[in-house]
Amino acid sequence: FRRGVHQLRDLPAPTIESLAKRARLRPCDVLENEAESSAMGARQYSPAQHLSKWNARPKTVLLVQKPDDDRANQAVARLLRHLTEHHPYLTLLVEPHTARYHDTYPDLVVVDAADQALLPLYTDLVITVGGDGTVLHTSHLFAEGECPPVLSFSMGSLGFLLPFHIDSMAETLEMTLAGPVSILNRMRLACTPIDQNGQVLQCAKAVGDVGWQVMNEVTLHRGRHAHLTVVDAYFDGQHLTEAMADGLLLSTPTGSTAYSLSAGGPISHPGTDAFLLTPIAPRSLSFRTVILPGSGVVKLEISPLSRSPAELSVDGREVCELRAGEAVIVGKSRYPIPCVERAAGGSGWVRDINSLLQFNVGFRNKSLRSHHEA
Amino acid sequence: FRRGVHQLRDLPAPTIESLAKRARLRPCDVLENEAESSAMGARQYSPAQHLSKWNARPKTVLLVQKPDDDRANQAVARLLRHLTEHHPYLTLLVEPHTARYHDTYPDLVVVDAADQALLPLYTDLVITVGGDGTVLHTSHLFAEGECPPVLSFSMGSLGFLLPFHIDSMAETLEMTLAGPVSILNRMRLACTPIDQNGQVLQCAKAVGDVGWQVMNEVTLHRGRHAHLTVVDAYFDGQHLTEAMADGLLLSTPTGSTAYSLSAGGPISHPGTDAFLLTPIAPRSLSFRTVILPGSGVVKLEISPLSRSPAELSVDGREVCELRAGEAVIVGKSRYPIPCVERAAGGSGWVRDINSLLQFNVGFRNKSLRSHHEA
Amino acid sequence: FRRGVHQLRDLPAPTIESLAKRARLRPCDVLENEAESSAMGARQYSPAQHLSKWNARPKTVLLVQKPDDDRANQAVARLLRHLTEHHPYLTLLVEPHTARYHDTYPDLVVVDAADQALLPLYTDLVITVGGDGTVLHTSHLFAEGECPPVLSFSMGSLGFLLPFHIDSMAETLEMTLAGPVSILNRMRLACTPIDQNGQVLQCAKAVGDVGWQVMNEVTLHRGRHAHLTVVDAYFDGQHLTEAMADGLLLSTPTGSTAYSLSAGGPISHPGTDAFLLTPIAPRSLSFRTVILPGSGVVKLEISPLSRSPAELSVDGREVCELRAGEAVIVGKSRYPIPCVERAAGGSGWVRDINSLLQFNVGFRNKSLRSHHEA
Amino acid sequence: FRRGVHQLRDLPAPTIESLAKRARLRPCDVLENEAESSAMGARQYSPAQHLSKWNARPKTVLLVQKPDDDRANQAVARLLRHLTEHHPYLTLLVEPHTARYHDTYPDLVVVDAADQALLPLYTDLVITVGGDGTVLHTSHLFAEGECPPVLSFSMGSLGFLLPFHIDSMAETLEMTLAGPVSILNRMRLACTPIDQNGQVLQCAKAVGDVGWQVMNEVTLHRGRHAHLTVVDAYFDGQHLTEAMADGLLLSTPTGSTAYSLSAGGPISHPGTDAFLLTPIAPRSLSFRTVILPGSGVVKLEISPLSRSPAELSVDGREVCELRAGEAVIVGKSRYPIPCVERAAGGSGWVRDINSLLQFNVGFRNKSLRSHHEA
Repeated sequence: FRRGVHQLRDLPAPTIESLAKRARLRPCDVLENEAESSAMGARQYSPAQHLSKWNARPKTVLLVQKPDDDRANQAVARLLRHLTEHHPYLTLLVEPHTARYHDTYPDLVVVDAADQALLPLYTDLVITVGGDGTVLHTSHLFAEGECPPVLSFSMGSLGFLLPFHIDSMAETLEMTLAGPVSILNRMRLACTPIDQNGQVLQCAKAVGDVGWQVMNEVTLHRGRHAHLTVVDAYFDGQHLTEAMADGLLLSTPTGSTAYSLSAGGPISHPGTDAFLLTPIAPRSLSFRTVILPGSGVVKLEISPLSRSPAELSVDGREVCELRAGEAVIVGKSRYPIPCVERAAGGSGWVRDINSLLQFNVGFRNKSLRSHHEA
Repeated sequence: FRRGVHQLRDLPAPTIESLAKRARLRPCDVLENEAESSAMGARQYSPAQHLSKWNARPKTVLLVQKPDDDRANQAVARLLRHLTEHHPYLTLLVEPHTARYHDTYPDLVVVDAADQALLPLYTDLVITVGGDGTVLHTSHLFAEGECPPVLSFSMGSLGFLLPFHIDSMAETLEMTLAGPVSILNRMRLACTPIDQNGQVLQCAKAVGDVGWQVMNEVTLHRGRHAHLTVVDAYFDGQHLTEAMADGLLLSTPTGSTAYSLSAGGPISHPGTDAFLLTPIAPRSLSFRTVILPGSGVVKLEISPLSRSPAELSVDGREVCELRAGEAVIVGKSRYPIPCVERAAGGSGWVRDINSLLQFNVGFRNKSLRSHHEA
Repeated sequence: FRRGVHQLRDLPAPTIESLAKRARLRPCDVLENEAESSAMGARQYSPAQHLSKWNARPKTVLLVQKPDDDRANQAVARLLRHLTEHHPYLTLLVEPHTARYHDTYPDLVVVDAADQALLPLYTDLVITVGGDGTVLHTSHLFAEGECPPVLSFSMGSLGFLLPFHIDSMAETLEMTLAGPVSILNRMRLACTPIDQNGQVLQCAKAVGDVGWQVMNEVTLHRGRHAHLTVVDAYFDGQHLTEAMADGLLLSTPTGSTAYSLSAGGPISHPGTDAFLLTPIAPRSLSFRTVILPGSGVVKLEISPLSRSPAELSVDGREVCELRAGEAVIVGKSRYPIPCVERAAGGSGWVRDINSLLQFNVGFRNKSLRSHHEA
Repeated sequence: FRRGVHQLRDLPAPTIESLAKRARLRPCDVLENEAESSAMGARQYSPAQHLSKWNARPKTVLLVQKPDDDRANQAVARLLRHLTEHHPYLTLLVEPHTARYHDTYPDLVVVDAADQALLPLYTDLVITVGGDGTVLHTSHLFAEGECPPVLSFSMGSLGFLLPFHIDSMAETLEMTLAGPVSILNRMRLACTPIDQNGQVLQCAKAVGDVGWQVMNEVTLHRGRHAHLTVVDAYFDGQHLTEAMADGLLLSTPTGSTAYSLSAGGPISHPGTDAFLLTPIAPRSLSFRTVILPGSGVVKLEISPLSRSPAELSVDGREVCELRAGEAVIVGKSRYPIPCVERAAGGSGWVRDINSLLQFNVGFRNKSLRSHHEA
């Protein structure tokens, strides 16, 4: 009977009752008045909740895959086979490029760009197949609001955002669908570009009502311009510093192992309720990363001293160019990304910074482990 | 009628009713069962409360001063004159060295070492006159439990822990006693040394029931030993890393501008709910500061590979020497230090990292502000 | 009789005898066969000679000024008046834009682009008026060979490359023309881009026979490309490392206070005979600046793993884009820049890193000068 | 006939003729008058000579081994067997602890402490068996003057100072004795402690006429004292900076991978003619390693602001304690350590920083090699 339904907008809309019954993880406990009173809608995610349990039986699952990649296509084929065989009741949503490649599955519901805003309403679970970039893309798909739990498969080595390998697809799926599973709520930033008058800037890549939702970091960078970027950084309205640098970035704890790490920043546990402000190649001897509490709001404003505009990027995608007097406002998003974690006790992060980043890796020669061993 | 009362223990004990009426700032909203269930008693301070208002009329005030310092003695003399003249109803507690120097004030109540444990019961407000070290000493006086609000005067330049100058003593006192004043709850660490069997170590400098309360940092250092310290660091029971270094320190956000900064760590806003783990001269190319959420517990254990014991210091005071297999357990204390802040809007910290630390200070020559300016 | 001579090429060529008599500073003692045998012509500058004395009476002086700058124009006007009044025997060379602005001086000899290659043959002394960029431009004017002594005036604050202020123009000029003056030979890099076959790349901005002569640094950077640059770095033919970063730069000691400093590199005395290899925002926890002896040759090759070309810049000017397999060869130039230094004993550099860079500047609050002062 | 000769002082002294005939590597080409004119005798080692060839047939060989170590004892036993069998003409010098252990070799010549000063006169080649510390000990044995070539064997993994493994002992020995072999002249520092009047300090561990000869670094450190060390650093008589820190160290290029690396310093090729000045845990945001040319002289003086004495260590051995006003003078020693290098082309150092230090080691997860790879 679902045969022929190909577009998300053609599905019956969820009723209020069904939405109310959804045992969806609440990503943050928002007091309604707080939510209303916050222009940015970005402050309510409580760090105490960075870990939670999820026990819902999803009905609608969105599959997100790395495009134009043979291994991803094959992995998604296996996934589709498994789901349609063992869980035929599930509604499966896919992006157009996935539907095109897997056209023998007639019941896939295609979500095209026009329907993207509907995703939070329909989706109970997201499954990603690809790399970190595929998870970032998922965050982008849910840029306008709440994101359902995300289960991420790697096709190669595991990673911070990739706790599961595609080879254990069947067990992992069954474990997740049966529940309960551990969820790590990864903080996102809500980020809004404004003009000299404080009005939201209409950039080429449109910003949503609640700003862009950012998983790793917001970056201002000189990009193709030869001149240094000069940025005035404010915290809760106070002038923190004038950064003269190739760039300046504000990172989430999750992003501390991405661009922020390259810029020399510290490594943060994803459960920390804080932002990391780090310059890229600053023209200063005395700049250090600044750790700011997640309850605050940061403004990064292009200084009138800046001789070129700066490129604004969120999670590595350039979204617009800011000129002197223009700024970006950044705070904690009320919409974290709830990531399904491995079951075994303990934080995957502790293991990952050792195995993936080779954090504090030992010297190969034991005699080098002292300053001057005999 | 108070004449002749010289020892704290001779004062009438506060009644349950009077304690209940005390409009004392609650440093943390502890659910009683949580408090009971936590072996360390160290997890309940909520970062959302790092700022609060205090509106109580204190009846008992403890004066803490830098010892053997002429300027401090004179400043305390002025303070005593002001308080006895304008607020004769106040009970004034002092340490023995202060009582000896100011022996013309017959009504001072002397708190000797034997009575130190009673201080939290009696004291409504602490006034310090001296430097950062005097505030750290105050933290040490309240090492066994809750600390009342602390009002700190500098005799020279202001500092992170010294928001007020002694020259504005009268206004500042009146403002504080009248209330309400802004309070910054500075997180402390609770820190307990244990032996190979997990039993509390009985060091020379006795550790209290809830461990040592630490404002800046816990440090393990090779000290006078020539060999590197080897420390296994654990987070929430997981092995994080093996540090081979001159030392390793775990800092509060407040401590991020003390020893941690010297070791290369980032600068943290005092309202961040996090610990900073930073090595001192590590034998590694790939060690960075690690930011850990304040809800976790850190164990630093001397490795069997370590060829010498390590000195354990809290806030710069060496407290004992740990040998292989011995460890220190560190978590967030339930007893922060509530510091009276300057009234004007905004965080003193933003101003202080600029004015005191010369954070990101500009080059004097404008032409140096670009890489290659014409 | 010089009236009417406006182009450098119209001046009588110096005779062999006059050239032989020139008491020109020899920037490096090159054994002729060494010079011949070096494909790069880049290895003969001896660091032992980084300081020397210059005692020649110059006959031909090149004036180089910051273009389109009122203060520079006025300063050059004063300079021209002084020189034509007190030293009428001097032949004064200028760039076309200077000649246009100062058209009341009929005897100025204009050096247009076509004649630039003749400059080393004719010029005894260069006087610059402007900023660091003006000195870098001078280095560029003498990109094809030996550079005569350079006397540099600042119109504002002094700098590493700007030891003299225009307000002391008359005394400084008289001191220099009378001699002897101290000369600091600043090492330059000789830098040649090559293709996959080792042939010199013909970039838009033509490279000379001896490569580009570089005063500060050679930089490979991703620039406007979003992907990281991947560069294989070789030292004397051995593979040193694969750098995955926003960029990679090789700096002279002089350049250690320019872009290299921003990238986190150490500060080098200009007399050190070494190169500094430093990454910009490397994707690694374990990259550090590498110091290489000035006698070696560095090759930076775009890796086949690199997903975008890299921009090659010398002293901040982008000169071409290198693709996978293309490389740049860098060694010490045989043509340093001999800079006239202030007369007083001691190195201006020691003073400059303190006064200009605010190197190791003290904290404003004395109590911050210890970790935990009382 | 040598039977019975056990002490170095009992050997016939070398004649002037035999010394003249020694094809010993000259560690530096000293102009005699320069040597005389240098109070420190420390400036003549030419970096151009950091690589040379050695072709002499040694007659007297000193064996230096790690003491109290079974593997070292066994390795030395094999070495003695090989040398006495295949090269019976060699005179073998050993330290007392080696002679005691290998007492079945009656012809070993024992060098006791009293004869140490004679070593440069007699020794043609040193063979070390042990770790980096054994090489540093050899440097110490030749602290008073010229050091002959040093051939170093590791019993485990190779290292910067340990190019040969004991398993290839026979081939390596034959290759070295036959010659020619490549020699890397490793710069040493000459280091002299002085009192407030500039007189040489008579410390417990006596300093020789030419100061201590230091292979890795000279360190001033607070050691067991709680207060920071305050050191005024001078370069060629100019005040460079006031360092307020746990310590301050001046390193050779060889030492750049020892303590200096832990303190955050860059990695230097051993052929660089430079010193590296690096603080340990400085109380400053704006301190960086400073690279100074090897032709200069550094003075590190305990500041009158220092509240405790500082421990002076050379190559990790504490030699004395300096009080306010006392200082240490450091320059390049005229006596480098000539180290026998592996034969194959290219620098062992390039290989070693990669294989031993894991310099710029890649992340294990390829997706981490970009900031945000899809």
